[in-house]
Amino acid sequence: MNSLIKEQVEQFRLQNQNRGRLLVSCPDQPGIVSAISQFLFSHNANIIESSQYSTNPEGGEFFIRIEFECPFLKDKENQMAEEFSEIAAKFSMDWRLTPVYKVKRTAIFVSKELHCLLELLWEWQSGDLMTDIALVISNHEAARDVVEGLNIPFYYIPANKDIREQVEEQQLQLLKEFDIDVIVLARYMQILTPKFVSANPKKIINIHHSFLPAFIGARPYERAHGRGVKLIGATAHYVTDDLDEGPIIEQDIARVDHRSDVDTLKKKGRAIERSVLARAVKWHLEDRIIVHQNKTIVF
Amino acid sequence: MNSLIKEQVEQFRLQNQNRGRLLVSCPDQPGIVSAISQFLFSHNANIIESSQYSTNPEGGEFFIRIEFECPFLKDKENQMAEEFSEIAAKFSMDWRLTPVYKVKRTAIFVSKELHCLLELLWEWQSGDLMTDIALVISNHEAARDVVEGLNIPFYYIPANKDIREQVEEQQLQLLKEFDIDVIVLARYMQILTPKFVSANPKKIINIHHSFLPAFIGARPYERAHGRGVKLIGATAHYVTDDLDEGPIIEQDIARVDHRSDVDTLKKKGRAIERSVLARAVKWHLEDRIIVHQNKTIVF
Amino acid sequence: MNSLIKEQVEQFRLQNQNRGRLLVSCPDQPGIVSAISQFLFSHNANIIESSQYSTNPEGGEFFIRIEFECPFLKDKENQMAEEFSEIAAKFSMDWRLTPVYKVKRTAIFVSKELHCLLELLWEWQSGDLMTDIALVISNHEAARDVVEGLNIPFYYIPANKDIREQVEEQQLQLLKEFDIDVIVLARYMQILTPKFVSANPKKIINIHHSFLPAFIGARPYERAHGRGVKLIGATAHYVTDDLDEGPIIEQDIARVDHRSDVDTLKKKGRAIERSVLARAVKWHLEDRIIVHQNKTIVF
Amino acid sequence: MNSLIKEQVEQFRLQNQNRGRLLVSCPDQPGIVSAISQFLFSHNANIIESSQYSTNPEGGEFFIRIEFECPFLKDKENQMAEEFSEIAAKFSMDWRLTPVYKVKRTAIFVSKELHCLLELLWEWQSGDLMTDIALVISNHEAARDVVEGLNIPFYYIPANKDIREQVEEQQLQLLKEFDIDVIVLARYMQILTPKFVSANPKKIINIHHSFLPAFIGARPYERAHGRGVKLIGATAHYVTDDLDEGPIIEQDIARVDHRSDVDTLKKKGRAIERSVLARAVKWHLEDRIIVHQNKTIVF
Repeated sequence: MNSLIKEQVEQFRLQNQNRGRLLVSCPDQPGIVSAISQFLFSHNANIIESSQYSTNPEGGEFFIRIEFECPFLKDKENQMAEEFSEIAAKFSMDWRLTPVYKVKRTAIFVSKELHCLLELLWEWQSGDLMTDIALVISNHEAARDVVEGLNIPFYYIPANKDIREQVEEQQLQLLKEFDIDVIVLARYMQILTPKFVSANPKKIINIHHSFLPAFIGARPYERAHGRGVKLIGATAHYVTDDLDEGPIIEQDIARVDHRSDVDTLKKKGRAIERSVLARAVKWHLEDRIIVHQNKTIVF
Repeated sequence: MNSLIKEQVEQFRLQNQNRGRLLVSCPDQPGIVSAISQFLFSHNANIIESSQYSTNPEGGEFFIRIEFECPFLKDKENQMAEEFSEIAAKFSMDWRLTPVYKVKRTAIFVSKELHCLLELLWEWQSGDLMTDIALVISNHEAARDVVEGLNIPFYYIPANKDIREQVEEQQLQLLKEFDIDVIVLARYMQILTPKFVSANPKKIINIHHSFLPAFIGARPYERAHGRGVKLIGATAHYVTDDLDEGPIIEQDIARVDHRSDVDTLKKKGRAIERSVLARAVKWHLEDRIIVHQNKTIVF
Repeated sequence: MNSLIKEQVEQFRLQNQNRGRLLVSCPDQPGIVSAISQFLFSHNANIIESSQYSTNPEGGEFFIRIEFECPFLKDKENQMAEEFSEIAAKFSMDWRLTPVYKVKRTAIFVSKELHCLLELLWEWQSGDLMTDIALVISNHEAARDVVEGLNIPFYYIPANKDIREQVEEQQLQLLKEFDIDVIVLARYMQILTPKFVSANPKKIINIHHSFLPAFIGARPYERAHGRGVKLIGATAHYVTDDLDEGPIIEQDIARVDHRSDVDTLKKKGRAIERSVLARAVKWHLEDRIIVHQNKTIVF
Repeated sequence: MNSLIKEQVEQFRLQNQNRGRLLVSCPDQPGIVSAISQFLFSHNANIIESSQYSTNPEGGEFFIRIEFECPFLKDKENQMAEEFSEIAAKFSMDWRLTPVYKVKRTAIFVSKELHCLLELLWEWQSGDLMTDIALVISNHEAARDVVEGLNIPFYYIPANKDIREQVEEQQLQLLKEFDIDVIVLARYMQILTPKFVSANPKKIINIHHSFLPAFIGARPYERAHGRGVKLIGATAHYVTDDLDEGPIIEQDIARVDHRSDVDTLKKKGRAIERSVLARAVKWHLEDRIIVHQNKTIVF
């Protein structure tokens, strides 16, 4: 990580020592917000941002994300978590309390097409993607120069379906070694095994170069061209065992017409892919996403 | 009001007997959400939807909108309001507690161009705009047939700048008589006097046929054409004494090019105007808008 | 047709007595534009608008649409067509020469949901959809009042899959009787038989309530909700024997989020459906569309 | 220029040896298209793409852009130009005949904010912006590393209003020396003198960080925030003597809301600025733009 970005991250950590995020899912019932906000108030925490959603007010599922400023958070986060676990038990909550100063550590996987990687690096250098990009893993050498130019470790691991298991073992080893929280597949053109995926639940974000569920699978731009669509799209989603079937985080589209050949679709598509993926990663890093069944709630 | 819509509204009222909305603005400080949610919980109210915003967590202004379901709301709304006024006093709150079953009464003002009026009537007939459209006032006869066809009273009041005061007196009289909560200027091409505006603060919504602050004032499409813009827009805003300077509620745009003459701009513009105005009115009817200084917070 | 619109159409016919459109597809080669423009010039025609497209300049397919103003067109259109057929033969052209004053005659098919029909009627009344709406056919009575209110013949023909053939025979009879050029399925929820479709090639426009090829078939909004998409869409296409597989004319989308239940998707979807269908019909009426294989070229 | 891009450009030149573009403006009258297309046909040129526009078919201005493939173009371009000048004289045409292999030479001016520069470099490296980026001039050192990293000459010329004339003399000298065709102001935060502008008519493209004509002049994001707009925008335009009043080439917008502080507006704005500027530059390089009075026709 070059020194300028290192400094940015350090400054962010300092500025956010007292900033926390609380994410909760539980069966809906009266009193949840009251219990949570009393708990926060009892710690002198000021609620900065709060979003909530119920699938159905009568007997549905309740979700809330609260960002708060709490004096001495760093010193008492463990105690707070302990206290909160009692409230959580009472309401059968799934929850997490995340201190913002603990910046997440990201691994980026990429193949030959670099536009998504470059966009992430760009946003990161601008301070818009608050994360430690701990390493980049690729089955090609194409990204080495730009990655190493930013003092990010680059690992070239050739891959194909015959050696998938060995490759993934090396990758999992690296993820462990670098203590990775998030894996971004920035146009990584290899299929992951169920083993790899289940080792990283809700932690792998992929960009698919179509408007899912249209054009699931390979060569979506070629197929979009064949069908004569008037819009093309891209989809960022969490990776699950079912290819391209994971919870969708974000989608966007661009207008095309009969003049657009496959190459034009790909060019236009690249612009959508990179912005859609960057938004999805940003939301994940800011703990804005709750996965519920096969959908996302994005606060 | 024709019988089908009447029935829809009646059903909505019944379904929402226990539904309330609480809107609060006050100086930010810890404990606000806790106090509000405890108050609601003490009345067995379940929070259905909640949105909040702080201009600046340290010493800024705090805003919240809560929609809740509260058993027997209709019976105890006055008592609740009384109780809440104590909390409000403590935190120096501006606030309102709105029972949803009290459907707002709307007056629509229109001139010769009917597209915005028709869109509102359409959304209203589809059940997407929950309001009593109590009357339509126009300085032209163009809208009479369609309005009376829906059994809505139509008042033709010719207007020009020389008789502005008499005209407005008649209008204010009608607004009073029909007990109007909201006034929608659906392309009403007359300027309102400060007297009229100040008698209806934050209650008048206008659609301006440009992307404000571009092309303030008259003939915006002609001027947009003259400037050779590549996008045209429309703006819905609350009316204040300064023409086209009131708090903006919603804006949208459409792409145009060199082939678009003034007539084409107007046609494309009509589609934007009607949807922008309909969204703004809908948000107002759902108590989603808080005006703060010269801006809107739209929850 | 009520008198105001009748007058509009009459005026349009008069203003466009000399206006023609020439649409051509043929194998690409040098000299096509030269031959066509010389032909037009030899008739003193002034080219007003011209668009062309080649799938591949070297040995591909060539398409052109020319709108021109030609003195005495009405008197000599037959002669012109005859002359042009010689050029056409030389270049192996598929072509049509359409005088603009021959306003197309449209039949609208609709079921219970009226938003698409209403949008078409609206655009038509505003003069933005230049056609004779000759009749409306429905398997429900819902549209009768609004249609007959505009003096358009309304035919109620109950339909279900058991009586499909008799129903279509009645419909085909009416189409013939009313000398129909275009059939618009404005949310007509019955499947058409191959016989009906092949009797009306490239003449039937349907609106499908999804972003094709996503959610082909029934209940697309329910399935979009189930998949957790972040965008919904609509597609206007020509009807061919393969359900929802015909050439796409136009598509658009709207952004949705986790808060959108199926009803919200439907409401938002209606706004897209009506504008997408209206654009597609408008382009068809203006002879802007050439169908090539299973795609459209929209000039 | 690094070797990879050099190679790309060289390949493009080779592939386009026979490709030409003809741009014409003249008073409208019958026979123009016929004359032009006959001329091209007489040289065995095949029309690949053609777009035209008339301000008003009866006595207005006519514009056309034709892209064609002509065997041996390189050898006979001068002769063709000479021949065409006769046709041009007959129809009082403004025209230019541009061989595509003569790739335009671009100078980029930038200050401290690099996002627009980086986008242009990115598109250029991807082969989507076919030009020689001959040099970058800046009044700051911020861009030096990235520019020199691509082997593009970088000139640091400190600037302020007191030394404007000396600065511009240096700049004009460099533009001459490097034989520059296009000047792109990629967030160059210095005002240009009329002398500089008139020395480069229709050759300077600027990006303004607002939706013109809203927020002309300095600090547009701060003023957009103050006004409470719901959309922000950016505008690419040719530079004329009147600040921010030159012919608009392209505009786009993004949605914002009450939560967006000035910094958020700037971040979102950067994404619009870079794509709007890149599109405008691309269209200019492809000779798609004709300036007519104070507007652009973009074919």
